[in-house]
Amino acid sequence: MNEGNWTDIAGRMGEDARGKFHRLPVRVYFEDTDAGGVVYHASYVRFCERGRTDFLRLLGVEARQLISGEASNEPAAFVVRRMSLDFKRPGRMDDLLVVETRVKDLGGASVTLNQDISKDGRSIFEADVTVVLVSVGGKPLRLSDAIRVAFEG
Amino acid sequence: MNEGNWTDIAGRMGEDARGKFHRLPVRVYFEDTDAGGVVYHASYVRFCERGRTDFLRLLGVEARQLISGEASNEPAAFVVRRMSLDFKRPGRMDDLLVVETRVKDLGGASVTLNQDISKDGRSIFEADVTVVLVSVGGKPLRLSDAIRVAFEG
Amino acid sequence: MNEGNWTDIAGRMGEDARGKFHRLPVRVYFEDTDAGGVVYHASYVRFCERGRTDFLRLLGVEARQLISGEASNEPAAFVVRRMSLDFKRPGRMDDLLVVETRVKDLGGASVTLNQDISKDGRSIFEADVTVVLVSVGGKPLRLSDAIRVAFEG
Amino acid sequence: MNEGNWTDIAGRMGEDARGKFHRLPVRVYFEDTDAGGVVYHASYVRFCERGRTDFLRLLGVEARQLISGEASNEPAAFVVRRMSLDFKRPGRMDDLLVVETRVKDLGGASVTLNQDISKDGRSIFEADVTVVLVSVGGKPLRLSDAIRVAFEG
Repeated sequence: MNEGNWTDIAGRMGEDARGKFHRLPVRVYFEDTDAGGVVYHASYVRFCERGRTDFLRLLGVEARQLISGEASNEPAAFVVRRMSLDFKRPGRMDDLLVVETRVKDLGGASVTLNQDISKDGRSIFEADVTVVLVSVGGKPLRLSDAIRVAFEG
Repeated sequence: MNEGNWTDIAGRMGEDARGKFHRLPVRVYFEDTDAGGVVYHASYVRFCERGRTDFLRLLGVEARQLISGEASNEPAAFVVRRMSLDFKRPGRMDDLLVVETRVKDLGGASVTLNQDISKDGRSIFEADVTVVLVSVGGKPLRLSDAIRVAFEG
Repeated sequence: MNEGNWTDIAGRMGEDARGKFHRLPVRVYFEDTDAGGVVYHASYVRFCERGRTDFLRLLGVEARQLISGEASNEPAAFVVRRMSLDFKRPGRMDDLLVVETRVKDLGGASVTLNQDISKDGRSIFEADVTVVLVSVGGKPLRLSDAIRVAFEG
Repeated sequence: MNEGNWTDIAGRMGEDARGKFHRLPVRVYFEDTDAGGVVYHASYVRFCERGRTDFLRLLGVEARQLISGEASNEPAAFVVRRMSLDFKRPGRMDDLLVVETRVKDLGGASVTLNQDISKDGRSIFEADVTVVLVSVGGKPLRLSDAIRVAFEG
């Protein structure tokens, strides 16, 4: 897919003292807010999934390929198993948020990611998310070496 | 599926001078509203799809069956081709809306439905929606006689 | 609001050995699913909020009243502070799920709820959700005795 | 707000033989798809709103300012009055779509926009959208000269 026209459309990879990270900018639109005047709490869960998807994309792993099996021996997808969510401060319409994703822990068939959402450099939401690689038939799969190396950076 | 415990969970069929209709109650939750303090405009499009799905359900046609092919000769699904939407008055948090769906026109492979959303008996949104029956491969399918009879009532 | 025409539209309160609970039926529509063929994970977070809102409604506390201040001394709303989510089994299109909500813990300004989502009587998702009562200005408020009594049953 | 780090985060303005236009890239994530394996139809309605919001933003009119009144004499917001939607081809997970927005017609208190969503340069969805400027109290407002000039380019 030719994406050359739009810079950073899948965010950016980076590295600091804590290790490798991925950052994705997310704009808050009306669809993300609620009648309380702030970002609806479940919207952060969607934002995190965008971050994970583009993190995988920049690692070279497209969700569509995982599902269709083009990138693995059998069709597979990452499925969320557990999340713990900490809502710290409200986001608002027109805010430009940044979703930062880091690998926290690598298991045999699961990955735990730490995801932080910030506004003007200040954290407003944080999540730990455990995803497992599952075949289309529902069976947990071992992470391939390619995926493992990609995550471990 | 045993749904006997929850009355009217798929709404109700009825008939008046204008013909057969289906009514589905829809509660407005925070997820449906936006920072303007009212129902987010795209939420009505979701509410209409709930109405169409339960209208089909009470006609005896489950979406899952259409897709899996259990209810037809080949796997198929209704796909929206055209909508015209009229946003008349705002809906608000906690409102109990009613989605009313009627068949407006039956074509060879398409159905045009008229859908009205009201609050305390007063219309706040109206849509004409044309859906086509399409095979999993993307080919438009003729409506089966069973579906045609169901729609014509 | 006259809701008499639609039975159980806000679910039902009940009581068993574990204490008081609220149950709300939730139908899975296309809007709730994703291209993986199952319920999108963030949809469960929305379903839980519907359960909490209707639990409060049957306790006599409407979200709109909390915000406008009609039911309290100053305008207020329950805001989600923390969630831990356990995704056990996939839900699918057309499923009729039940969201069960129970009070797990009552603090000075916070309530922790346990929410379980089941399908045909089998749990597919579970969450612990801590909400705090916050004034429109953002200040945490003590739970009124009325709300406290309502929760403690 | 410092957005300098992320290029084109609000899309780009351009001009061709048909006049001025705004283009916004939109990635398709799981949240935008449904169990049919394609983009859920109401997602396009959300994508169009993102396009309109960023079109206004690049014209110098932030939604939050319209609501709070910082950019006008009285608090106001654009509200959707009518939409006609044409669903031409399916979008899919991981697609990079482009939402193109053009002014079609300028009335006293309303603007009709034409919005086209394309994939690899080929249109998959088109909408005509009429929005009106409304005060917080619900009264239609005349478009200010500043807004009018911005739209007419």
